[in-house]
Amino acid sequence: MSTDTDAHIIFQPSGRQGRFPLGTSLLKCAQKLGVDIDSICGGQGICGRCQINLIIGEFSKFQISSKHNNLSSFSIPEQKYKEQAGLKEGRRLSCHAKVLGDAVIHIPQESQVHKQVIRKEAKSHEITIDPAIRLYYLDVKAPNLQNSSGDLERLLLALNEQWGQNNIRDIEIEFIQSLQKTLRDGNWKVTASIYLNKNIIAIWPCLIKQVFGIALDIGTTTIAAHLCDLTTGEVLASDGIMNPQIRFGEDLMSRVAYIMMNPSSSDQITKIVRSGINKLIKRLRLQTGIEKNKILDSVVVCNPIMHHLLLGINPTELGTSPFALSTNKSITITAKKLSITEMNDTAKTYILPCIAGHVGADAAAVLLSETPHLSDEMTLIIDVGTNAEIILGNKNGLFAASAPTGPAFEGAQISCGQRAGPGAIEHVRIDPKTFEPRFQVINCNMWSDEEGFSDAIKETGVTGICGSGIIEILSEMYLVGLIKPNGLISGINKKSTDRIQKDGRTFRYLVYSGNVEISINQNDVRAIQLAKAALYASVQLLMDKIKIKTIDRVILAGAFGSNIDVLYAMILGMIPDCELSKVSAAGNAAGTGARIALLNKNARIEIESLVQKIQKIETAVEPMFQQYFINAMAIPHKVDRFPNLQKVIALPKVSEYNEPTTMRKFQSKQRRHRPIS
Amino acid sequence: MSTDTDAHIIFQPSGRQGRFPLGTSLLKCAQKLGVDIDSICGGQGICGRCQINLIIGEFSKFQISSKHNNLSSFSIPEQKYKEQAGLKEGRRLSCHAKVLGDAVIHIPQESQVHKQVIRKEAKSHEITIDPAIRLYYLDVKAPNLQNSSGDLERLLLALNEQWGQNNIRDIEIEFIQSLQKTLRDGNWKVTASIYLNKNIIAIWPCLIKQVFGIALDIGTTTIAAHLCDLTTGEVLASDGIMNPQIRFGEDLMSRVAYIMMNPSSSDQITKIVRSGINKLIKRLRLQTGIEKNKILDSVVVCNPIMHHLLLGINPTELGTSPFALSTNKSITITAKKLSITEMNDTAKTYILPCIAGHVGADAAAVLLSETPHLSDEMTLIIDVGTNAEIILGNKNGLFAASAPTGPAFEGAQISCGQRAGPGAIEHVRIDPKTFEPRFQVINCNMWSDEEGFSDAIKETGVTGICGSGIIEILSEMYLVGLIKPNGLISGINKKSTDRIQKDGRTFRYLVYSGNVEISINQNDVRAIQLAKAALYASVQLLMDKIKIKTIDRVILAGAFGSNIDVLYAMILGMIPDCELSKVSAAGNAAGTGARIALLNKNARIEIESLVQKIQKIETAVEPMFQQYFINAMAIPHKVDRFPNLQKVIALPKVSEYNEPTTMRKFQSKQRRHRPIS
Repeated sequence: MSTDTDAHIIFQPSGRQGRFPLGTSLLKCAQKLGVDIDSICGGQGICGRCQINLIIGEFSKFQISSKHNNLSSFSIPEQKYKEQAGLKEGRRLSCHAKVLGDAVIHIPQESQVHKQVIRKEAKSHEITIDPAIRLYYLDVKAPNLQNSSGDLERLLLALNEQWGQNNIRDIEIEFIQSLQKTLRDGNWKVTASIYLNKNIIAIWPCLIKQVFGIALDIGTTTIAAHLCDLTTGEVLASDGIMNPQIRFGEDLMSRVAYIMMNPSSSDQITKIVRSGINKLIKRLRLQTGIEKNKILDSVVVCNPIMHHLLLGINPTELGTSPFALSTNKSITITAKKLSITEMNDTAKTYILPCIAGHVGADAAAVLLSETPHLSDEMTLIIDVGTNAEIILGNKNGLFAASAPTGPAFEGAQISCGQRAGPGAIEHVRIDPKTFEPRFQVINCNMWSDEEGFSDAIKETGVTGICGSGIIEILSEMYLVGLIKPNGLISGINKKSTDRIQKDGRTFRYLVYSGNVEISINQNDVRAIQLAKAALYASVQLLMDKIKIKTIDRVILAGAFGSNIDVLYAMILGMIPDCELSKVSAAGNAAGTGARIALLNKNARIEIESLVQKIQKIETAVEPMFQQYFINAMAIPHKVDRFPNLQKVIALPKVSEYNEPTTMRKFQSKQRRHRPIS
Repeated sequence: MSTDTDAHIIFQPSGRQGRFPLGTSLLKCAQKLGVDIDSICGGQGICGRCQINLIIGEFSKFQISSKHNNLSSFSIPEQKYKEQAGLKEGRRLSCHAKVLGDAVIHIPQESQVHKQVIRKEAKSHEITIDPAIRLYYLDVKAPNLQNSSGDLERLLLALNEQWGQNNIRDIEIEFIQSLQKTLRDGNWKVTASIYLNKNIIAIWPCLIKQVFGIALDIGTTTIAAHLCDLTTGEVLASDGIMNPQIRFGEDLMSRVAYIMMNPSSSDQITKIVRSGINKLIKRLRLQTGIEKNKILDSVVVCNPIMHHLLLGINPTELGTSPFALSTNKSITITAKKLSITEMNDTAKTYILPCIAGHVGADAAAVLLSETPHLSDEMTLIIDVGTNAEIILGNKNGLFAASAPTGPAFEGAQISCGQRAGPGAIEHVRIDPKTFEPRFQVINCNMWSDEEGFSDAIKETGVTGICGSGIIEILSEMYLVGLIKPNGLISGINKKSTDRIQKDGRTFRYLVYSGNVEISINQNDVRAIQLAKAALYASVQLLMDKIKIKTIDRVILAGAFGSNIDVLYAMILGMIPDCELSKVSAAGNAAGTGARIALLNKNARIEIESLVQKIQKIETAVEPMFQQYFINAMAIPHKVDRFPNLQKVIALPKVSEYNEPTTMRKFQSKQRRHRPIS
């Protein structure tokens, strides 16, 4: 019950409450109780961030102060704010609404500093918005002849006195260079942005409420970026470009091999990826009309080689054993030092830590997004790229490894393979009776046996098979009996179809013959067998480490993971058996992780600590790897290990399979570095 | 007395002592006692920094270990060091000489970390060598497949385990970029240089014992630099160049005025001073053969306008009241960010704090060099430039002010004035009977009335009068009666000499007539009167603040201070009366201060703290300034205030002096900004 001197105030949804002297502003009450209310202007009634609703109690809408009102009437600044910026019915600015009696106050989501943003993706946790950058509106003392302190020192004083920010250090010279003009342009009222409570990044000569950040996912093939509002967490624009490094090699190892032979090219490759990033951010800026000096923070995720190349570190060491990283810690750097100029001159770039020489910051980002470390389920995360990055575990611990799959899954080393681009076959079905194939090409929804297909693909034509197409063809060939479990393309059915053709001492399967002939030959099957065996053997090693026989959940990350049909991946024996409903693709999981680290500064601390705790397994030196690798060559090896898969599909009967000599030959070939393509 | 298990060791000159188990190395003993012995290699017997002399005791010079020896005989690494690098008679490497019995050990100066270097200048304290940069020889673990940590992390581990350096952070990306190659080139043995126990600046793939630093004094007219050995403190080379900014105005205010009218020129002027610095450092490097990646630290002192221009801050605010500095704190920055490229990419630059808008980091450096804050003597430090910087005080406190002298003392605003350069008259004597002048020109030791003078100056000719020459001419004219105490050039003696000539309504004194005519006119005298009155009045204000009537010691800093004859300065009434033996010029005091801050990291903390404590007086707003200023116009005003001066020289009798109207006119003229010359 309110008295003549104080009143009882309850804040919702936190439920925190206390008694406060009459006349105290609601913002002050909230701050005293540790209730989360945003404010940039520090109680001047101009930023509008601290809006609340009065749930129980009353307030006068007119300029009458009355004992019966529980909140003071609108102040003049509040009234002015309402007229100029608008206030929803029932809303008040908590910095100007004062306690006159007992009240229950509701703080809407948008007035909280640590807002929660529901992510659109299924099965993923919410992002708590708590960015590294915070804005502070300041009233700086003007200099006079009696006070000879520097402008910077008076700004720091205001930050301390008005906001309790007393640990500002490491001030960039670019900031000091712009300081004097901005203070005078703003007539000593400015908005300062502070990074992690210690760096002043920028100031503006007015009240600023919105600043922005960039989440970057630098892949071997593509670079994706999201432009986010750092205060609401909203993604304002997303875009992607081809990684311009591609002209130095389609896959990672080609690029490293190129640099090994042309050491000075490392700097050049660094330069072009940086200019690609600038191009991409500029595009996002043009789409949204956001000026570059409002972009203050950025987060980068990428594999170790992209990581080193972005930072200007020659990646040669990552190309040879023992694959030593320059650093396995996160890096915080001024974007300008990376020649990223499409942001404010003092904007920061945070690069997530790499997990190991072959398991990158992108894998770390997937962890942030998929949170296996918070789950009971034994989760397997696979990111298939030139080498597959594998993480296995749950809240009791995580293990990471890289599988030496080579680039076959990306369509390289396959006779008709190509990158997943226009003209590439991505889905295939084979008639079990006629052995006739039908297929779909990227960017076209029609099947090749539908009418009008030729017209639909007139522009691109059919140019090759991409990674997911290869998985499907081989699986289908296996299901219809064209490939034996040991991987040999069968010549037995030769008479019943002219799709199977003699190819030297082995056979090939003709998928398409138009302007080009597209077929699968014995070497293609072998390349995929080697890749999938390496992947499976690596997973099995990790399962051994954790001493488990089954996996609860499989997440296929990366672009490849989004495109393949998980059923076919399992038929081929790429991944271990798992309930199919628990196998999912998380195509942009790395990008989502980047966005989480951008919007929540504690996520950075979380992932840094998690990465240190992950146990890294180097599969190549594990004694069991060879045996597991050979065992995993069959399609799918040991069907009895796939109880879940057998519930869904009838697999061909497995004949005995033992062909160690040939296998070993392929294996040693696989270990060598692939020459430049 | 030594026992079978331990012995008594005394270290000189510290006198620290203790008992140590037989077999302990002397370096370990010293470290346990906190005795200052240097070491880079950490006891491997290869750096040779830890040499000692055995004073009492014996050691075997042969490979015989005997009970009667108090130190172990030469170890194999020690013997190798002696053969390759040489060891003076009686010297041992303390890391390999082991205790076998009682001994008194002497640590020579050069083996101490905190060496003391005797400065050549009189009356100045020693510099304790304790640089911000320290070198550490490291044995880094190579990576292997079982240990997937980054190379950087293993380097940091070695620094921690081998040297207890566990607070390394803020690692520059340039360092990481070079890390992997260096570690492998050095076969995992490297020397790391650490800045202030927290930044790794550079590493080398071998043992490095010598690194270097630059002390820079950026004056309005000249830039001076010293290249110093950071371990011995030795100055290896010193050089200077004209400040290339000079083409934007000879004096400071001209440059600020130029920038005010051409705001974009600020960046250009920043660029040229930086390139001047690079040119100068390169010259020092070529003189000494030192490669740029060995230069790791630098210190800059300069006035506030040079300070802002070097940092790329537009100095316009320093040109108008209230003369607000961007920052009055010291700045530590990577030299590369200042485009100083003639050092290692990660080398640091430390810029001393400015004291106030008109009292710069150069004045702070003079304090470091002259240490009035450690003295009982009431010390006045004057640095005459475009504006005179004044510091007055002793260990009880310091006051600082700037006197609005304008550039007259530098020869500007004087009809025949010029910068102190070739052809400038710098010393003058006038015959009291004939009024004939004789003079000396810069870079020529002959007087103008000596035979062969014309030949001696044939190349330069006589082109004008520099600041010190003006002081002498005016003083001499005053002493022989050609100038009255109120400053009027007297026409009375016109008949007895044709050196006094009519010049409109006033007179002029002809000093020289050859290819050019050089004379002193009434306006010249007035300009100097205004300047010296401003200086004197400012000093008087500070004396008022401290409530003192006399000054114990006067230090004239800066180039002008070194060139003027202090007697003449006192005759003219530029500086207050003081015992002449206590008036000294400290021409390179600012440069010495820069060197101190370069060689001793604690000097940086000392000056930062001192600058905060100095009381800054803005003379322009002090109520008494006007009155003091007018009173100080006479030559020398109120002779009775110069008891010490009168002991040395007979001054003309002072007539009454009162000419307030004219004075005010000049005064208001003086306050205006001088247009661009």
